[in-house]
Amino acid sequence: MKEFLLFSRTGYTTGNFKSLMEAGRLDIVYQCILTSAFRAHGHRSDVVFHAILNGSPNPPLHLQINADGLRNARVDESSWAEILRDVLNGGEHAGISLEKASLQEVIKEKAADYKIFALVEGKRNVQDLDLSGNALFVVGDNSGLPRKDEGFVLRYGKRLSLGRFSYLAASCIDVINYELDLRETPQ
Amino acid sequence: MKEFLLFSRTGYTTGNFKSLMEAGRLDIVYQCILTSAFRAHGHRSDVVFHAILNGSPNPPLHLQINADGLRNARVDESSWAEILRDVLNGGEHAGISLEKASLQEVIKEKAADYKIFALVEGKRNVQDLDLSGNALFVVGDNSGLPRKDEGFVLRYGKRLSLGRFSYLAASCIDVINYELDLRETPQ
Repeated sequence: MKEFLLFSRTGYTTGNFKSLMEAGRLDIVYQCILTSAFRAHGHRSDVVFHAILNGSPNPPLHLQINADGLRNARVDESSWAEILRDVLNGGEHAGISLEKASLQEVIKEKAADYKIFALVEGKRNVQDLDLSGNALFVVGDNSGLPRKDEGFVLRYGKRLSLGRFSYLAASCIDVINYELDLRETPQ
Repeated sequence: MKEFLLFSRTGYTTGNFKSLMEAGRLDIVYQCILTSAFRAHGHRSDVVFHAILNGSPNPPLHLQINADGLRNARVDESSWAEILRDVLNGGEHAGISLEKASLQEVIKEKAADYKIFALVEGKRNVQDLDLSGNALFVVGDNSGLPRKDEGFVLRYGKRLSLGRFSYLAASCIDVINYELDLRETPQ
């Protein structure tokens, strides 16, 4: 299983918002759901997406989206604004769960069975990493991972760099999915 | 210069719509603008994005977005719904232009100075192509390029494949940008 985790410094932990962008940049969470969970004709079957939401009023919350279990989910932001509003207000949606948990708690639990990678800027090294088996890729939002959280993740895992550019979080996920596809399929 | 062109079979050619998705899947146009024009901290300086909109009531329209010239443009879909609604209703926006033109017309004009690539599914060949210099990458929407239009593009250019998966159009653009970045920067 391949999993992505977005650390959202400001993402609201309530469904009371007007737009995803104004909800502490939940639009970034949507963009990452789009690129992690969807291909052109449906969901990816082997991807789980996590977001840790650290915005008010009830942080941290751990949002988990199981691409394979998703139902009634289209790919546009408007649809996801409705879904996230509902789930953050306590509603249920197939394939999506929400619990009170911090980045540290999720990483510790995953580290038992998963290779952990923290996405960082710098000299590209993705081509040299063994990404086989269960892997969790931790991505920061537009402000990046806070230093102490990056340090925490790196106690359990390795740095992964796609090169010297700062891509959008959603673009990083696209590129990692591509790198994974390159390894896992005959060319 | 690197340019992307999305062929949208159904994208509305009017700003009278409720949501981008309901406007003949203009949400796909938004997603491609996101991944072609933006990095984490601002616009790409060397990318132009084109969409050919073939939906009612006034097809075909050629929408062009000059990433470097963009002003007052955020990255979320809601913001782009407003921008596209305004531009399709005749409004002006820095970095964006709209004209009556077909895929054939745009391709013919570009072919004078640009290498043309049509994104197709199939055995991956991107690693063997020379992408240097001016290049235009033509991407289909969720229905792919119509066969006759793909044939037309291929009279002027080459097939490019990222592998056997059908990625979202926006994800294809992310991956091509990544392949370009790999070639154009020291690793």
